Amino acid sequence: MSLVSIGTVAFDSIETPFGKVDKVIGGACTYISLAASYFTDDLNIVSVVGDDFPQSELDFLASKGIDLQGLEIKKGEKTFFWAGKYYDNMNQRDTLVTELNVLEHFDPKLPEAYQDCKYLMLGNLTPEIQYSVIKQLKNRPKLIVMDTMNFWMDIAIDALKKVIAEVDVLTINDEEARQLSGEHALITAAKKILQMGPKYLIIKKGEHGALLFDKDNMFYAPAMPLAKVFDPTGAGDTFAGGFIGYLAKTDDISFENMKRAIIYGSTLASFCVEEFSIARLKNLTQNEINERSQQFCDLVRFDLPK
Amino acid sequence: MSLVSIGTVAFDSIETPFGKVDKVIGGACTYISLAASYFTDDLNIVSVVGDDFPQSELDFLASKGIDLQGLEIKKGEKTFFWAGKYYDNMNQRDTLVTELNVLEHFDPKLPEAYQDCKYLMLGNLTPEIQYSVIKQLKNRPKLIVMDTMNFWMDIAIDALKKVIAEVDVLTINDEEARQLSGEHALITAAKKILQMGPKYLIIKKGEHGALLFDKDNMFYAPAMPLAKVFDPTGAGDTFAGGFIGYLAKTDDISFENMKRAIIYGSTLASFCVEEFSIARLKNLTQNEINERSQQFCDLVRFDLPK
Repeated sequence: MSLVSIGTVAFDSIETPFGKVDKVIGGACTYISLAASYFTDDLNIVSVVGDDFPQSELDFLASKGIDLQGLEIKKGEKTFFWAGKYYDNMNQRDTLVTELNVLEHFDPKLPEAYQDCKYLMLGNLTPEIQYSVIKQLKNRPKLIVMDTMNFWMDIAIDALKKVIAEVDVLTINDEEARQLSGEHALITAAKKILQMGPKYLIIKKGEHGALLFDKDNMFYAPAMPLAKVFDPTGAGDTFAGGFIGYLAKTDDISFENMKRAIIYGSTLASFCVEEFSIARLKNLTQNEINERSQQFCDLVRFDLPK
Repeated sequence: MSLVSIGTVAFDSIETPFGKVDKVIGGACTYISLAASYFTDDLNIVSVVGDDFPQSELDFLASKGIDLQGLEIKKGEKTFFWAGKYYDNMNQRDTLVTELNVLEHFDPKLPEAYQDCKYLMLGNLTPEIQYSVIKQLKNRPKLIVMDTMNFWMDIAIDALKKVIAEVDVLTINDEEARQLSGEHALITAAKKILQMGPKYLIIKKGEHGALLFDKDNMFYAPAMPLAKVFDPTGAGDTFAGGFIGYLAKTDDISFENMKRAIIYGSTLASFCVEEFSIARLKNLTQNEINERSQQFCDLVRFDLPK
C-alpha cells in the first residue's frame, strides 16, 4: 500500500566513543524510508536537499524503490546539516552544530501522484510542516503516524497539539511522554495523551524497549541487548520506518498487527545502531531480518503453568 | 524443598511523594521470606533483631509458615534501623539514617535443623556474613542465590568477589552490573560476571524489567507499567523472594523454569510497591498472584508470521 514519508534528508557529523565521521548521510526521512524499503516498494518521500547532496546517494535511495518526486533539490542552496557527539553511556548526546540551510524556508508540496497515500509517516519536523502535509491530502490516509521531540514541546506546544489531534499513532520517548502529559507514571501519561487525539501511542525507551498503548490494551516490546551500540543516530526514525513499512505491507492496522510492526521496527533499529550513519541499513538481507526478529521472539518467550 | 533466607529484619522510616511512615517493618529477609511464603512452606530465616521488635510481627511471620529458629533476638539491644526518602521519579533515593544496632556484631549461627537446606537465599548483607553462612552448611545446597549492592563493591570488592565465586545465581541492578564488570553494554557485562563464578546472572532494571543470563541464553522479563508506585522499598528483595520461592516449590532449576520464577518474582514485586512497607504483601490471594502473572504474559505476547 502506498506509503508517504516526510522528514529531513541531511548531512550528519557524528562522534561516538567508537569513532568519528564527517558529513555522512542522515536525516529522519532517509532512515524512515530505508527501513520501510525492506517491507514495501510503494514508497514515496517528501523532503528537501541542496544541490550539494550527492547524486550517487539519490541514486542509491531510488535503487531501494524509493520514489523521489517529492524530494525538492534547491539550486544554489545547502543541505540541512547536524553535528552531534555521544558520550560513554550513549544515552546522552550534545548537538554541536545545526545548520538549517534548505530547511529554513521548506514549504513541502505534495506531488499529485502521492494523493493516493494510504500510510503517512510524519517524521520529526516543525509541527506546522507536519500539519500542512496532512491538509494537502484530499482524502485522509488509512493511518497517519507522527514522530516528534521535546524541542517542539518546549517552543511550539500549541502547534504541536494541533497536529497530535489529527494523527492515529504518536511515537515519542519516555521523557517526552512525561513532559507532554505532566504525568510521571507512563501508564497514566499514556491515558492522558490518548485523550489528545491519537488512537495509539508508542513510547520508545531506547535500550529498554518500547510500549504500545491504545484505549484498552498495552504491549511491552523488549529491546535487544547489544554488545556494541556503535552509533544511535537514526534509531528512532529507523524504528518508525520499520513499523509503518510493515503495516503498509500487511495493510492491517489491528493492535495485534501493530505488535508485530513494533518488533520489525525494533529489529531494523537494532541493525541501524551497529554501524555509523545508514551503513548497516544499506544492504540487509531478508534472512538477517527474519533471524533477528526471531531472536526478539526467543528473548521474551516464556510459559506459565496452567 | 527447604529454603533458607538470610538478611536483615529491620525498622524502616520512609518518605515518598505519596506520604511518610515511621518505624514500619522492613529488611531484606522480611521481604524475601514473605514473598517466598506464597510459594513454599518449608521456609527458614537467619537474621537478628533487638528486643524492641514487636512480638505481634514475629507472630505474623510465623503465621505465614516462616520458621524463626534462626532469628536471634538480642536482649537489651535495638533492631537495625534505616530511614530513606524517595524523590518524584522514585528511581532516586537518599539514605537519611542508618543505625546498625544489632547488625554491628551479627555473627549468624545456622540452626542444626537448617542443615538440610536445598535452596539458600543470601539477602544483601556484608559479604563476610554471606560467606560464613555458605561455609556453615555441611552439604552444598542445590541452589545458592545471592543479592548484593554497589556499597559492597565500593568498600569490600575482594570479599564480595569471594562470595560471588561460590554462588549459582547473582542478582544485581544494571548500574551494579556495569560497576562490577567495568563494561557498559549489559550483554558484555553479563559475560564477564558469569566468568566470576555464577552460572546465572539476573540484572534488575526496576521499571524496565529484568534480564536473565546464562552462558548460552538470555531472557528479557518486562516490568508491569503501574499507575502508582507508592513505595519502592523492598521491591528487589521481594523479587528475589518470589524467584527463589517458586524454584524451591517446583524444585526445577532449568533456564526455562527460571524464566517463570522471574515472572513470579516480578509479580510479587509489582504488588510490593503498591503500598508502604510490607502492607500489600501481608494478605495476597493466590487468585491475585495468578491474575497479575497472567497480565505479564499478555503484556509481552506476540506472534510473527511464519
